[in-house]
Amino acid sequence: MENNSPLTRVPGFRAVGVTCELKTSGQPDLALILADAPAAGAAIFTTNVFKAAPVLYDMALLNKSGGRIQGVIINAGNANAVTGEQGMRDVTEMARLTEAVCSLPKDSVFVMSTGIIGHKMPMDKIRRGIKEAAHVIKTEAGQTGQNAARAIMTTDLVSKEAFAQCDINGQTVSMGGIAKGSGMIHPNMATMLSVLVTDAVIEPAVLAQSLKKAASRTFNRITVDGDTSTNDTVVILASDRAENAPIEPDTPAFKTFTTTLTELCADLAKTIARDGEGATKLVEITVTGAVTEAEAETAAKTVATSPLMKTALFGNDPNWGRALAAIGRSGVRLEPAQVSLRLGDFQLVKRGEPLNFDGAAVSRRLAASTDVKILIDLGVGPDWATVWTCDFSYKYIEINAEYHT
Amino acid sequence: MENNSPLTRVPGFRAVGVTCELKTSGQPDLALILADAPAAGAAIFTTNVFKAAPVLYDMALLNKSGGRIQGVIINAGNANAVTGEQGMRDVTEMARLTEAVCSLPKDSVFVMSTGIIGHKMPMDKIRRGIKEAAHVIKTEAGQTGQNAARAIMTTDLVSKEAFAQCDINGQTVSMGGIAKGSGMIHPNMATMLSVLVTDAVIEPAVLAQSLKKAASRTFNRITVDGDTSTNDTVVILASDRAENAPIEPDTPAFKTFTTTLTELCADLAKTIARDGEGATKLVEITVTGAVTEAEAETAAKTVATSPLMKTALFGNDPNWGRALAAIGRSGVRLEPAQVSLRLGDFQLVKRGEPLNFDGAAVSRRLAASTDVKILIDLGVGPDWATVWTCDFSYKYIEINAEYHT
Repeated sequence: MENNSPLTRVPGFRAVGVTCELKTSGQPDLALILADAPAAGAAIFTTNVFKAAPVLYDMALLNKSGGRIQGVIINAGNANAVTGEQGMRDVTEMARLTEAVCSLPKDSVFVMSTGIIGHKMPMDKIRRGIKEAAHVIKTEAGQTGQNAARAIMTTDLVSKEAFAQCDINGQTVSMGGIAKGSGMIHPNMATMLSVLVTDAVIEPAVLAQSLKKAASRTFNRITVDGDTSTNDTVVILASDRAENAPIEPDTPAFKTFTTTLTELCADLAKTIARDGEGATKLVEITVTGAVTEAEAETAAKTVATSPLMKTALFGNDPNWGRALAAIGRSGVRLEPAQVSLRLGDFQLVKRGEPLNFDGAAVSRRLAASTDVKILIDLGVGPDWATVWTCDFSYKYIEINAEYHT
Repeated sequence: MENNSPLTRVPGFRAVGVTCELKTSGQPDLALILADAPAAGAAIFTTNVFKAAPVLYDMALLNKSGGRIQGVIINAGNANAVTGEQGMRDVTEMARLTEAVCSLPKDSVFVMSTGIIGHKMPMDKIRRGIKEAAHVIKTEAGQTGQNAARAIMTTDLVSKEAFAQCDINGQTVSMGGIAKGSGMIHPNMATMLSVLVTDAVIEPAVLAQSLKKAASRTFNRITVDGDTSTNDTVVILASDRAENAPIEPDTPAFKTFTTTLTELCADLAKTIARDGEGATKLVEITVTGAVTEAEAETAAKTVATSPLMKTALFGNDPNWGRALAAIGRSGVRLEPAQVSLRLGDFQLVKRGEPLNFDGAAVSRRLAASTDVKILIDLGVGPDWATVWTCDFSYKYIEINAEYHT
């Protein structure tokens, strides 16, 4: 069963992706994930003030349902964002229809959308798609999770899946996830969506706490171009099927669960960064020696979003000056004379002094690498953070300039 | 005399640019500007924590000299940044040598550098250059300011000059300036340098106040790629030759002087944005209806630095979704249902609702424009701000990825 979706490898879940022609490519574009019974649910959403209709719907839903969710319906091709009152009516209809055709309770379906902004949802296609998905999910395709990860892709080049297990008080707990990253059919911005499922026994509030912790060091630490979508959403459902004693906050079980969830999310997050629009490299930037973790994260993200740094990496240029200039404007506390920088195995700056190094050798090593690690020590404190990004290539410009809304 | 430098059109100043082979192109790379007598001086500097040696030198100099400056020496090709103690010795020697060969008082020479980071200054070339500049500035070349603006260029495609006059209590006051923008021989980051001169009678402290006001709405409102250089510096010298009654703060004369200085700085700033690395368009982004001017500026700068917005403009795509997404993550107060957006003559969004528009027509208009204006109204307050940037092209990637340190 290794070819199965990580979603359906977790007891208690079915999933499927179908085609309803929202994508012009004819690829699957509508995913349905169902729990066998109402599951504990938690989610995190975009911080963008312009929240798409499904984001507003889901935020209200979690409040209303007390965090019990049984289905997730996701479409790619249209973001249902900046669509006014009609957008809210459309997302509500998507939820109602999914509940009806899947025989689920009212207010138990979560909705996610990704794609073009400012266009009404093509509801005829969506209605047909939901009915078909409800039909197909009852077959073996639903048991294997066929096409679910592919159906949420937009300009992603690879589908993104991850699976993990841990032991909670003697019971094996499984968790699986799918995600999509940067790019759209008509690219407007990089929307990040992820659906995670687990069979753990855990209350919605505790699940929310664990998800928040896991996401803060994974999904919230990746950047392709610094832009935040109107639709970013991560949702997790827990089916209770592992029959572990309920996971309570501030316990070893909570810690184990959260650590495993963090690893799962990190797998997905790194896959998203590696598949950033036009990327040729996954770039891991770790800042140590910061006064606080938040300052370490700010410094690392400033380097990670610097176009000058990202183009240098695309050009295989060990241009440490651009990294220092970025942290120098990031606003975090540092001491120029204490700052050190490593690029992979090469130390380039030590306590504020540039070291002599063989630029051609470092450049050759960069050219041969699809994984680059940059380590910057600020030398003023104990805290650290890691972020992931990708380089900035001609292809990024092509993807984002040559397609049209 | 229209072909003269705007620096030497202002009574009391000479200027010249010479070649000392810091640039491999053989173009002029060392500029010298002299006042006939010690002038009132004021400056603003980069906020980057990694300040280059000349920035640290000049900050101390202004304190020590009480704001009296007689000369400015500027080299392109080496930024003298992250160069440790040797860097401080080199900048000091540049000042001392200029003072000696030009017969100026001690602590009267301001130093600026732009170019590669982390490399020692080639002081043999610099010494020869300073001596030559001191010699040539006494000739007609010094009276016309020959090559001064060209000598501070790095990868700038055009030299940047501006001139303005105003009436201060019946006396004509002149002001002139040169600037350089984005790009370096070995590009590390976009360094912005500008030298401004005026013949106004004005005390250093008042001049500093006026410069700060002017720069805050001009030089501080342009962005090419969001990066802040280690070397950014704007300096102004006032020669007293206009013989106006001294300009005092909070007077109509101060207001007139500052308004004219702001226009001069805006001319230079816009020229820098238009000549951003790889730019095909000057993009003016105005945010109105903000609660405060600072929030308007933040919102406009978030749009101006969004790679998704900048690539859309390069692609002539009226992608208003990217602009809204950028202001939505900018953290400023706004009401999604009140936000409106205009692109040139076309209204695309009105009070939160996307309008129907002829996308092909807007795109054709964009393709035919080298000047693009975006107007976003947040609809929640009375304040506004304008920023200038450029689009993001293949050429930007080429310039920044294909050159090597």
